[in-house]
Amino acid sequence: MSRVVKLAVIPGDGIGPEVIAEAEKVLDAVTADSDVRFEKTRFSLGAGRFLETGDTLTDDDLAAITAQDAILLGAVGGTPGDPRLKDANIERGLLLKLRFTLDHYVNLRPSKLFVGAPGPLANPGEIDFVVVREGTEGPYVGNGGAIRVGTPQEVANETSVNTAFGVERVVRHAFQLAARRRQKLTLVHKTNVLVHAGAIWKRVVDEVATEHPEVAVDYLHVDAATIFLVTDPARFDVIVTDNLFGDILTDLAGAVTGGIGLAASGNINPDGTFPSMFEPVHGSAPDIAGQQKADPTAAILSIALLLDHLGFPAEAARVSDAVEADIAGRTGARSTAEIGSAITARL
Amino acid sequence: MSRVVKLAVIPGDGIGPEVIAEAEKVLDAVTADSDVRFEKTRFSLGAGRFLETGDTLTDDDLAAITAQDAILLGAVGGTPGDPRLKDANIERGLLLKLRFTLDHYVNLRPSKLFVGAPGPLANPGEIDFVVVREGTEGPYVGNGGAIRVGTPQEVANETSVNTAFGVERVVRHAFQLAARRRQKLTLVHKTNVLVHAGAIWKRVVDEVATEHPEVAVDYLHVDAATIFLVTDPARFDVIVTDNLFGDILTDLAGAVTGGIGLAASGNINPDGTFPSMFEPVHGSAPDIAGQQKADPTAAILSIALLLDHLGFPAEAARVSDAVEADIAGRTGARSTAEIGSAITARL
Ligand SMILES: CC(C)[C@H](C(=O)O)[C@@H](O)C(=O)O
Ligand SMILES: CC(C)[C@H](C(=O)O)[C@@H](O)C(=O)O
Repeated sequence: MSRVVKLAVIPGDGIGPEVIAEAEKVLDAVTADSDVRFEKTRFSLGAGRFLETGDTLTDDDLAAITAQDAILLGAVGGTPGDPRLKDANIERGLLLKLRFTLDHYVNLRPSKLFVGAPGPLANPGEIDFVVVREGTEGPYVGNGGAIRVGTPQEVANETSVNTAFGVERVVRHAFQLAARRRQKLTLVHKTNVLVHAGAIWKRVVDEVATEHPEVAVDYLHVDAATIFLVTDPARFDVIVTDNLFGDILTDLAGAVTGGIGLAASGNINPDGTFPSMFEPVHGSAPDIAGQQKADPTAAILSIALLLDHLGFPAEAARVSDAVEADIAGRTGARSTAEIGSAITARL
Repeated sequence: MSRVVKLAVIPGDGIGPEVIAEAEKVLDAVTADSDVRFEKTRFSLGAGRFLETGDTLTDDDLAAITAQDAILLGAVGGTPGDPRLKDANIERGLLLKLRFTLDHYVNLRPSKLFVGAPGPLANPGEIDFVVVREGTEGPYVGNGGAIRVGTPQEVANETSVNTAFGVERVVRHAFQLAARRRQKLTLVHKTNVLVHAGAIWKRVVDEVATEHPEVAVDYLHVDAATIFLVTDPARFDVIVTDNLFGDILTDLAGAVTGGIGLAASGNINPDGTFPSMFEPVHGSAPDIAGQQKADPTAAILSIALLLDHLGFPAEAARVSDAVEADIAGRTGARSTAEIGSAITARL
C-alpha cells in the first residue's frame, strides 16, 4: 500500500531554485523504491513573483499551500537595496506569514559539526545540538508601531508578546526531544533585563522540568550563550529559546558548524493541523544566484528533516548518512549540481 | 596647576573587589607624577549590600554618585539561584538604573585581538573594532508587563522603545568615532522583522551619513552579524546598534578577542551632564570570587577608557601599551594581583 504525500515546492528567489533542484533530486532518488510517493505542486513566490505581479502571498496561494501535507522552501528575497522592492517586505509578508498562519510553533534547527566540515573554531570539539526556536510569538509578532515618523519627535516601538500557551507547547516539545537525545536542555533568554518575558519562560521551563526528571536543565543569558557557542559548543544538547534569540543563535551555530551552507531547518506544526515547512537556514544570496556556486547541502538536509517529520526515519537517515559521507570526502570546489549528484549517488 | 577628579569606586560583588584593586593600582601608578589627582569615594553596592541592608540603590547613593566626575565599577550580582536574592534584581535596580539615570547613552565597547591573546578562532585575522551600543532605550527600558501571571492564560509583553532623539545622538557619536578611525560604520539591526524600530535606525543612519561622506556605511541583520564576527571579524571598524543587540554582539566579540577577561567598556554620557561609568564587560563570577583567579585586565583596560574620556590620552595610552605588552608576554597562570602588578611595572 503506497502513501501519497502532497508536497508544496517553493523554490523562491536567488539561489533558491538551484538548491531546491538538488534537494528534489535527492528526494526523488531516496523514495524511488519506497512505498511513499510525493505529489509535488510548485508555487512561484518571492521577490520575483512580487516584481511580476505585485503579489506577495494571495489568499488563493495560502489556501492551496494549506491543503498540502508539507512544504519545501528554497529561499526568498530580492537584491538588497533594489528600489522596486522598497515597499515589499517579502520576509514578513511571505516567510513569516507562512510560519504564523500555519502555526509553525517549533522552529527546529539542528547544529552538527560533520567530520570534514570546515569551521572557524580552532578546537571545536564535538558539536551536536538542536535549537528549538519558538516560531509564532516573541518580538516577531509584528506588534509594533511608530508615531511622528521621520520627524525629530519620532517614537518607534516593537512589542514582544509571550503567552503561557505559546511558551508551554514549545518548551514541552523541547523537553521531549531532549529526553530522546542526551537529556540536557538549556533555556536561553535574558531574564535579568526582559523580566516579564523572561519570567514566563523560566517558570514554564521549571514546571515542565518536573515532568522530566531525567532531563538536566540549565539556563544561560543570551549574551553568555553566544560565548559558549564559540568556546564550548559541546556543552549543548537541546537549546530552547524565543523567536529572536533563536534566530540569532542559529545563524551563529550554523557558522561554527561549517557555515550556513550546511544548516537545515524545519518550521513544524507538531499537531499536524497545518503542513510543516522545511528550508535551509541561508537566504537567497542574489549575488551568487544562477552561477551554480551555492551549496545545496542545507536544502538536502532539510529533506532529511522533512522525511523524519513525515514518519520515514529510515529514508531520512539514508539522506543524512549520504550527506555525512559526502562532507567527509570533500576536496576541491564543486558546482551546486555536482554536490547534489554526488550525494544522490551515495544514497 | 593640578586637576582633581572625583571618582566613585564601586567594587561590587564576587570578583569585583579583586579586579578593582588591580585597576586602582594601575590608576595610582600612571597618575603618580602627573598633574591629575583622583579623589576616590567608595560605594558599597551590589548583592552584598542588598543582603545586609535590603537596599539596592538609595536616593542618597544616587545623589552622591551623581556628584562625582566619573565612576569605576567592578561587577555586581550574587550567586545565581541564591533564594535570598529571589526578589532582588541587582541588574535592573542598580546597574541599569545607573546607566539610565546618568543618561549613559553611549555604551562603548572596544574589541581588539592583542598579539598573544588566546582566542577560539583558527584564523582570526586582525580584529580591532568598537561597538557603540545604545544605552538608554530599546528593549532595556523596562516597558513590559504581564497579566494572569502563573496561569495558563498568562500574557507577558516587553516593549522596545526607540526615539529619534535617542537614536540620533548615539548614531552621531558612532559616525564621529568612525571618522577618527578607519572610516567604516556598520549598522546592525533586524530591519526585516522589527520593521518600526528597524526603520528609525536605518533612516537616522542614512541621514547622518550625508554629513559624513568620508565614512563608508554598511548594514547587517543581527543574525548575519554574528556569523561575520566569527568568520571575518576584520571587516568591522565601528558597529552601531541598539541596547539588546549590542549586549549580545559584545559578549561574542569579547569571546573572539580572547575572552571577556579582557573586554572593557565605558558607559558614557558624552554631554558631560552626568558622570560616565567604566566597567569590565564580565560579571561578578561568584564561583571564583576571592581566589585570585580572575583576570583584572578588563578592569585595567577600563581605566584606559576612563583616562581617555577624562582628557588624558597620554596616560590612557600608557595603560593600553602596558596591557598590550603584558599580554604579548603571557606564559603560565598568574594570580589577579600578579597580573595587576606586572602591568603596573610596565607602565
Ligand atoms: C528572513 C528572516 C525573516 C528569517 C528570520 O528572522 O526568522 C531568517 O533570518 C531565518 O532565520 O529564517
Ligand atoms: C548585567 C546585564 C544587565 C548587562 C546588560 O545586559 O547590559 C551585562 O550583560 C552587560 O552587558 O553589561
